[in-house]
Amino acid sequence: MQSLNRQPWPEAIQDDLQEVEQLLEKVTSVEYLPMAYLLQHTLLGKGKRLRPALVLLAAKFHSYRPEVLVPTAAAIELLHTATLVHDDLIDNAGSRRGSPTLNTMTSVRATVLVGDYLFAQSAILAVSSENIPAMKSFSRALVTICDGELREVLTAGQLNNAREEYYRRIDSKTAALFSAATEVGGILSDAPEHICRALAEYGHGLGMAFQIVDDVLDFVGDERQMGKPVGNDLRQGTLTLPAIYLMELYPDDSSVADLFAVDTDREEKVRQVVEMVTNSPAVERSYAEAREFVGRAQAALQVLPDNEYRQALMETAEYVVGRRQ
Amino acid sequence: MQSLNRQPWPEAIQDDLQEVEQLLEKVTSVEYLPMAYLLQHTLLGKGKRLRPALVLLAAKFHSYRPEVLVPTAAAIELLHTATLVHDDLIDNAGSRRGSPTLNTMTSVRATVLVGDYLFAQSAILAVSSENIPAMKSFSRALVTICDGELREVLTAGQLNNAREEYYRRIDSKTAALFSAATEVGGILSDAPEHICRALAEYGHGLGMAFQIVDDVLDFVGDERQMGKPVGNDLRQGTLTLPAIYLMELYPDDSSVADLFAVDTDREEKVRQVVEMVTNSPAVERSYAEAREFVGRAQAALQVLPDNEYRQALMETAEYVVGRRQ
Repeated sequence: MQSLNRQPWPEAIQDDLQEVEQLLEKVTSVEYLPMAYLLQHTLLGKGKRLRPALVLLAAKFHSYRPEVLVPTAAAIELLHTATLVHDDLIDNAGSRRGSPTLNTMTSVRATVLVGDYLFAQSAILAVSSENIPAMKSFSRALVTICDGELREVLTAGQLNNAREEYYRRIDSKTAALFSAATEVGGILSDAPEHICRALAEYGHGLGMAFQIVDDVLDFVGDERQMGKPVGNDLRQGTLTLPAIYLMELYPDDSSVADLFAVDTDREEKVRQVVEMVTNSPAVERSYAEAREFVGRAQAALQVLPDNEYRQALMETAEYVVGRRQ
Repeated sequence: MQSLNRQPWPEAIQDDLQEVEQLLEKVTSVEYLPMAYLLQHTLLGKGKRLRPALVLLAAKFHSYRPEVLVPTAAAIELLHTATLVHDDLIDNAGSRRGSPTLNTMTSVRATVLVGDYLFAQSAILAVSSENIPAMKSFSRALVTICDGELREVLTAGQLNNAREEYYRRIDSKTAALFSAATEVGGILSDAPEHICRALAEYGHGLGMAFQIVDDVLDFVGDERQMGKPVGNDLRQGTLTLPAIYLMELYPDDSSVADLFAVDTDREEKVRQVVEMVTNSPAVERSYAEAREFVGRAQAALQVLPDNEYRQALMETAEYVVGRRQ
C-alpha cells in the first residue's frame, strides 16, 4: 500500500491525529526492548493514517467527541496493522512500503504473537468507546476481513468466476474496514441512522477504489516507491482486476491461465503478463472501474452538509483514485 | 491439557452447555469444506468445556440469563481455542489431547488464519452480550494472554528469577482467562461487585492450580492419555514448576541449567531431567503448591450462598488438583 504523501489532512483533525499517534506509541512501549523495537518498526512512522483520519472526518458532521473518537481511530489502525502483520507472514512478503516486513526480521512465532498483541490492544481501545453499535460494526469488519483472507488462501489460483471472486475478496480485504471506519465515525458522533449508512457506503466505495488502484500499481507502479517488485500478486497466485481484464480482452491468449496452471518458468511468465497488462487497455479499464467506485462513494456524501469536512472526504476519494505510482 | 472426563457438570447447566456447543458448531459451518473440516477438527468434540461451564456456574447465584450467558460462554471457548491454535503453531506442537494439531494438518498460513477467524468470531459473540464491563474483562484477559505468550517466547531458556517468571507466565497464560470466565459470569448475572471480585479470585486460583497440574503431568503423565510425549515443555525450552523445584532441591546439580545452556544431546538430557523430577519430591511439592491455590480459590467462594452451584465450583477445584494422569 502507498503512503498518502500528497493528502494532507485538514487542520481541524490534525491535533486529534497527533493524539492517535501518541496512543499508538503507547502501545509500542512494552517492557521488553526487542519486542518494543518490533512494535515500533511495525506501527510507527508509517503512511498517513488514512483509516484513523476517516473515523475523525466522518464524525465531524454531528457531535464530535475526541475522547471516544481518538481511541477508536487508534483501534482501527491497530486492527489494520494486525491483519497486515499476519498477511505478510502468510504471503511470505519481504517488504512493505520499502521497509522489511516483520516476518523477515524475526521468527514465525514472534510475528504471529505481535499480530495477536495488536489485535488485543485494538480490542481494549475499541471497548473503551463504551458504544455497543460501534463495537458491533468493528467486530463485523474483523469477521469479514478474516473471511476474506481465508477465501484468498483457499481459492488462490482458481480462475472461474474470477471477477466475482475478485470483488468479494477486495470487499472483505479492504472495503470492510474503510466502511467500518466511516460508519463508526458516524455512530460515535450520534449521527442519525441514514447518515451512518451513507458514511458506510462512502467508506465502502473508497475502499474498493483504493484496493483496485493498489492492484493496478502492483503492475505499473514504481518499484522503489512501492518498496516491492511489480507482479507480486501474480507471483503469489493472486488474480487481480488488471489480469482479469487482460483475460477478458484476449480470451484466446492463455498467458494468465498458464501462469496459474504450470509451475515452471514462473518468473518469466510473471514478467510476460506484467508486460502484456502494461501495454493493454487493462490498466485504464481498471482505473475506470476504480473511478466508478469513487463516484458512488462521492454520491453517498450528498446527504451531508457541504462544508470543509465533506470537501475533505470528496478530495480523499479523488486522491485515492488519482494515485498513479 | 487433559479432558475432564470425571467432572460431569450439574444438570442445571447441561442444556445451556448444549447450546454453547451448538453455537460452536455454527462457527464451524463455513462455505468452504476444507475450512469447515479444519474448524470442526479444532473446535468440536474436545474436552468438557471447562471455561464455558465456569461462566454458567458463576452466573447461577444471581440473575441467570441464558440469552447473554450462552454466547459469552461460547466466546470464551473460542478465544481459548484461538490462542491454542496459535500456540501450537508457535511451539511447533505435534499433537494435543491425542489429536494432531492444526499446524501439522495444514499450512502456516491456514493455521494463522483459522486462529484469527476464531478470534473474530469470539469478538462477535462477546459483543452480542451488549455488556460493557463484561467486554472490558474479556479484552483485558486477551491482552494479558498475549503479553504472557510474548513473555514466554522472549524469556525462553532464561533461568534467573525462575519462580517469579513462572508464576507471572501461568497467570497470563491460564489464570487470566479462568478469572475472566468466572468474573464475566458474575457481571452478566448482575452480581454485586464484591461477589464479582470473589468469583474472579476463585477463577484465578483455579487457573493457577490447573496450569501447575498440567505442568506436573508434562513430567509424570501417561503419554497415551495426554496425547503427547513427556518432557515436552523442557524440549521447548520452557521451565516449569517441577524443574524449578528440582533446581532448588539440588542447587549443586546442573542438569536443568545444562539443558538450557547447551544444545547437544538434548533428548538425552530431557530424559534425564524427567527421570530426576519423577524420582524427587519436586512432583509432590508442585502438587502441594497447586493445592494451595485451590484452597485460596475455595476460600474466595465463602461469600456465596452454600448451594449446589457453590458445591459444583468447590468440586471443580478439587477435581482440577486431583488429576494425576
